[in-house]
Amino acid sequence: MTVIAQNWLAPLVDEVRPHLAGGAVSTYLPELRRAPADELAVAVDLGDGNVLTAGNLHARFTVQSVVKVFTLLLALHYRGEEHVFARVGRDQGIGSYNSLETFIRGSGVPVNPFVNAGALVVVDMLPGDRPQGRVAELLEFLRALTGNPTIAVNEAVARSELALSDRNRALGYFLRSQRLVSCDVEELLWAYCQMCAVEVDVVDLAHAGRVLADGADVHLGGRLLQAWHVRLVRRLMLFSGMYEASGRYATEVGIPAKCGVSGAMIGVVPRRAGVGIYGPALDESANSIGGLRLMRLLALTLEIE
Amino acid sequence: MTVIAQNWLAPLVDEVRPHLAGGAVSTYLPELRRAPADELAVAVDLGDGNVLTAGNLHARFTVQSVVKVFTLLLALHYRGEEHVFARVGRDQGIGSYNSLETFIRGSGVPVNPFVNAGALVVVDMLPGDRPQGRVAELLEFLRALTGNPTIAVNEAVARSELALSDRNRALGYFLRSQRLVSCDVEELLWAYCQMCAVEVDVVDLAHAGRVLADGADVHLGGRLLQAWHVRLVRRLMLFSGMYEASGRYATEVGIPAKCGVSGAMIGVVPRRAGVGIYGPALDESANSIGGLRLMRLLALTLEIE
Amino acid sequence: MTVIAQNWLAPLVDEVRPHLAGGAVSTYLPELRRAPADELAVAVDLGDGNVLTAGNLHARFTVQSVVKVFTLLLALHYRGEEHVFARVGRDQGIGSYNSLETFIRGSGVPVNPFVNAGALVVVDMLPGDRPQGRVAELLEFLRALTGNPTIAVNEAVARSELALSDRNRALGYFLRSQRLVSCDVEELLWAYCQMCAVEVDVVDLAHAGRVLADGADVHLGGRLLQAWHVRLVRRLMLFSGMYEASGRYATEVGIPAKCGVSGAMIGVVPRRAGVGIYGPALDESANSIGGLRLMRLLALTLEIE
Amino acid sequence: MTVIAQNWLAPLVDEVRPHLAGGAVSTYLPELRRAPADELAVAVDLGDGNVLTAGNLHARFTVQSVVKVFTLLLALHYRGEEHVFARVGRDQGIGSYNSLETFIRGSGVPVNPFVNAGALVVVDMLPGDRPQGRVAELLEFLRALTGNPTIAVNEAVARSELALSDRNRALGYFLRSQRLVSCDVEELLWAYCQMCAVEVDVVDLAHAGRVLADGADVHLGGRLLQAWHVRLVRRLMLFSGMYEASGRYATEVGIPAKCGVSGAMIGVVPRRAGVGIYGPALDESANSIGGLRLMRLLALTLEIE
Repeated sequence: MTVIAQNWLAPLVDEVRPHLAGGAVSTYLPELRRAPADELAVAVDLGDGNVLTAGNLHARFTVQSVVKVFTLLLALHYRGEEHVFARVGRDQGIGSYNSLETFIRGSGVPVNPFVNAGALVVVDMLPGDRPQGRVAELLEFLRALTGNPTIAVNEAVARSELALSDRNRALGYFLRSQRLVSCDVEELLWAYCQMCAVEVDVVDLAHAGRVLADGADVHLGGRLLQAWHVRLVRRLMLFSGMYEASGRYATEVGIPAKCGVSGAMIGVVPRRAGVGIYGPALDESANSIGGLRLMRLLALTLEIE
Repeated sequence: MTVIAQNWLAPLVDEVRPHLAGGAVSTYLPELRRAPADELAVAVDLGDGNVLTAGNLHARFTVQSVVKVFTLLLALHYRGEEHVFARVGRDQGIGSYNSLETFIRGSGVPVNPFVNAGALVVVDMLPGDRPQGRVAELLEFLRALTGNPTIAVNEAVARSELALSDRNRALGYFLRSQRLVSCDVEELLWAYCQMCAVEVDVVDLAHAGRVLADGADVHLGGRLLQAWHVRLVRRLMLFSGMYEASGRYATEVGIPAKCGVSGAMIGVVPRRAGVGIYGPALDESANSIGGLRLMRLLALTLEIE
Repeated sequence: MTVIAQNWLAPLVDEVRPHLAGGAVSTYLPELRRAPADELAVAVDLGDGNVLTAGNLHARFTVQSVVKVFTLLLALHYRGEEHVFARVGRDQGIGSYNSLETFIRGSGVPVNPFVNAGALVVVDMLPGDRPQGRVAELLEFLRALTGNPTIAVNEAVARSELALSDRNRALGYFLRSQRLVSCDVEELLWAYCQMCAVEVDVVDLAHAGRVLADGADVHLGGRLLQAWHVRLVRRLMLFSGMYEASGRYATEVGIPAKCGVSGAMIGVVPRRAGVGIYGPALDESANSIGGLRLMRLLALTLEIE
Repeated sequence: MTVIAQNWLAPLVDEVRPHLAGGAVSTYLPELRRAPADELAVAVDLGDGNVLTAGNLHARFTVQSVVKVFTLLLALHYRGEEHVFARVGRDQGIGSYNSLETFIRGSGVPVNPFVNAGALVVVDMLPGDRPQGRVAELLEFLRALTGNPTIAVNEAVARSELALSDRNRALGYFLRSQRLVSCDVEELLWAYCQMCAVEVDVVDLAHAGRVLADGADVHLGGRLLQAWHVRLVRRLMLFSGMYEASGRYATEVGIPAKCGVSGAMIGVVPRRAGVGIYGPALDESANSIGGLRLMRLLALTLEIE
């Protein structure tokens, strides 16, 4: 295994930074629009307290679609593989993450848990009578995963998302008409918006990624995450985590990862490392330009299969 | 032109009635489920007070999708052809009336005003700050068209429809996310459900159909319906009025018509007659078996082009 | 009925001509590319030898997709309605005429006889062991329809078409894999290319259209064309004859018609007239700009329903 | 790393064998129809001459779609990554391997090199004026990969395939109409059919798989296979090798693999092993039942990430 020097990340960030100018921050929410397009930060948690970092570590940002990794883990934990994959597919999917085409033709279930329709079904599976309780559960889970007890929802971002949720609302009602969602759609959306608006930094994401890199069962708070479930999620991240660029990412990079529209990105190098990246300049597939390029350099350096 | 005897319709109804056993009433709403599957009634308004009838004339039923003809007429009247057809297509469409595939690929507008998505866009176009006022407007228009001042909404049916509207709600929010619907979606749905639940009998529909058979502008209450708009609607009915069976209907029958899931059907024989039919036994395309067969016999008798 | 003066057409052509500049001739074949974009000719056959004309009557051109009207008539004549419509749909269809999407989802049959896939199935239905004999049959039929015994194939155009037939060849082999075409695909294509390359003028098309305007059975050479079959074809032309612009044409014009990529267009006014148009300047849907505009003016003048 | 005993495979085969009864051999070709449904054989090449086997090692079978792995490697070798992936996608795709839907919407290129359309484009890329020369090239490459100089085409199977190639012929002509294939389609098909009909046994496939498991550049005959190209192919196999079951396979098994309709299957465990399987009993997705189950047991035993 490659030996990794403490000053290893800074040159990678320097190599990537010039490419950020080719992208643009998301205009989806007012709060995202205010992000600086030239921001780039990265943390790599190698375990045993060995965390490397580069770039602006003070940047805080919302996880957005990265949260879909954590909600899927919780759903697998509470419902099991069979229950989950009867209600959501595990195919790569085509088209954009919030289109009405993200359903498997014929079966009518969402193509995977990382498109919005799939994530809504997953949140509907979580335990608790009312969606609001699931936000508390997710927060508690994220605090355990990151080791950061201050992790919280950015309420202003959550409210912004709710105000712009008509497409997700359409998905929610469609799913309820298909009996794939059973709870109140407005409550589900509000819970989902809050989950997307959880605020973190790159070290938080790297810590969480390192936990998910383990090959054995993980004790986490009162939960026992099964190694098999975590592995399933890693594999799904590998080939479905980057929206319509997933196929290209899977062949060119090979580190299981998930991105969000804020520029957040989590990576999981099995057995070795967790990666957290923040790079709000996005390409036309809504993926972080800095994130993709950094992840590719990391994969080459770490000799990822 | 064929001379039409007073006792002309009864044999046609007798010829059709045995075929009703092959169908089933809609199970979409509790109220529709209670309809007698062997019911069949027809009225033909030849103008100048000359109305022929056969079958159970006391049957009252809700118009359901037949109302889409009237809402389109009102939208053309108030907004004009260009405004309307910039927001809804005029193609035959494929697939079922409430699927998520009833959008023109690329443009994203509903394929025509007779699929649910298109009807919602049309209702959103009607004048009035709030959707509820549009229900009153439609009722007033229908009373003028039918000459029946007692036409009203069956509130129980409307409430049933609203309770089962998740698919239409999904369409509504999707349309609002596309900026094709601008008003409150819940209010729009409630207005739409009430419109579908307007209660009529076959003579009402025949009267309305006779008005729409005119070739000249029509004064109706305070409105002047332009002949050109009415003709546009007739043409669209000809090839788009029967859901996925529209192409077959257009080639085999040729009378502009529109059906509803209740078994309601309106037909318009240009310059000559309006037709109202009630036949709740439906085929697998959700079209009235009695309605389609009666309309075909009428077309042969009337030597429709 | 409107009285039609002998000098009636010339002003219509004058009104339409300025719009031709907005279009372009087809670049599909070298021979089509050489057509003058400002050409416009029209003939209206009112029966009893009463033929009105305007524009350049000497222009000769190939029928291209207009031939699909005649092959469908022959197939109905020889095979009957049930046989034909078990192998090809009668829906309007979406998308362009030669795309791989012109199949009815599920059933796999071509959406209608006027898309290329449907036309190939229709030609495969015609009698004769070998496709080549069907070209002779079609020619003989067209000579009878037009009253012009000199109608013939432009062999140079036919060979050009064959050389550019890979898309149609793909359709042919796909149809054979679906068992919707049974003969040798290369022979079928060559027959189809020759049929598309039949050369006519606008008077020929107007004569043929006038025959198809009849409401009664038509004796034609040794054949008896059933009125019901001719009416079916008129109805299908009404709402499917203009590629992806068919819905708009059906609602705005209302004269059953079919266009070809050469700028050829045939129209059929039931009981009254046949129309032949040549206007090689095409719009972006590959429809003749002059043809569509002239047809609309004719519809208004003739007060077409 | 797990220590692997010589008698390790036999119990796995015993565990899997009872499940074969749930499947059926392919009826696609007469030759495949004759395969015994209860056949199951496996070889695992661990390198350094260490090859484990179980089941009927004498069974010989054609590679069918497994050959797409080798043609892709050759195309990457001769044309490079950029050239190849400009003409074929690297997405998982949906639907069956030979449908007309295996194209990326918009771009029109085949979704990946493992659907038939993609494989035809890849074979068209191989060097040589005429497709026939590419068969010789492939054979020579396979002989080097397997270390078996007797590898040859089963001509009877190749001719059977050609006789049933209308769907692939349709794809070929469609691709030529899109300028994604430039050579004579009939010659291309014949070359492709011969390539699919290369005959091997499980030890051949295991040897080839072991070569592709290497992390470094591989000298092979006169060629230097770049490690990066081989890795790209492994990654694509991981999530696209099992037709419509690819997503399920990628999450449940995780060994890069490719199956063929004959029941052939190759697996590549990076750095560690090549796997060859023959199990002609197929499930409804046309994947080898024995192959999938054996591969899953191997993945668990080898603790594949």
